[in-house]
Amino acid sequence: MKPKISLITLGVKHLARAIHFYRDGLGLPEHETDSDEVAFFKLEGTWLSLFPREALAEDIGITDDTPDGFSGITLAHNVASQDAVDKVLEQAVAAGAELIKPAESVFWGGYSGYFRDPEGHYWEVAYNPFMDLT
Amino acid sequence: MKPKISLITLGVKHLARAIHFYRDGLGLPEHETDSDEVAFFKLEGTWLSLFPREALAEDIGITDDTPDGFSGITLAHNVASQDAVDKVLEQAVAAGAELIKPAESVFWGGYSGYFRDPEGHYWEVAYNPFMDLT
Repeated sequence: MKPKISLITLGVKHLARAIHFYRDGLGLPEHETDSDEVAFFKLEGTWLSLFPREALAEDIGITDDTPDGFSGITLAHNVASQDAVDKVLEQAVAAGAELIKPAESVFWGGYSGYFRDPEGHYWEVAYNPFMDLT
Repeated sequence: MKPKISLITLGVKHLARAIHFYRDGLGLPEHETDSDEVAFFKLEGTWLSLFPREALAEDIGITDDTPDGFSGITLAHNVASQDAVDKVLEQAVAAGAELIKPAESVFWGGYSGYFRDPEGHYWEVAYNPFMDLT
């Protein structure tokens, strides 16, 4: 197995709302498809996909009986400075995300905060002076 | 915001078991750290991190009151042929994953199956002749 995640798919409640958030709010580049039932964003490295949560469970062949709540997974967007952390969090909130944890200096020596997208998925925005993942 | 997901963190129940699965079972390259409370895998594009789920919720500052079940998120590993899909699924199962959906030709014209890692996270292994994400 090649060491690569090709695609991360977020199950969403409202596809149009989710596309609006990621494309228009965060400015991610959408990859054109001929389907209006799924969206792809062509990111550096691992792509992002949005797909209705029910359809995602159906594709796997499972029953989705988990109530709304923490998915147990977070996505991180790393930036090169504390100031950039603040700016991305502001951008996300302006786009409709909820600020869950305002950015602060954290125990491991970095600076980070969390937002939750309109579909309930958690993102950390972080400046990590020890490991450059920007 | 730069179009990149830096890191995806899977909240896990048993960190050692999860590291064993991804490092020894799937062969992903671990990034050395001086902490035994978190693991990082240096992948092409988005890195993978493993972190105890409770600690992840605590880091966000939320209470994790969601029961076990579907997270609403899937990861995909794309490969260049149907045969390679079968091989990666076999590798995952040999490493302790559960085969959830055996690989099959799917409606969108590709060939894919799903496994669930020992911590409950879902991966699709796919051959997509129309979009090369390998």
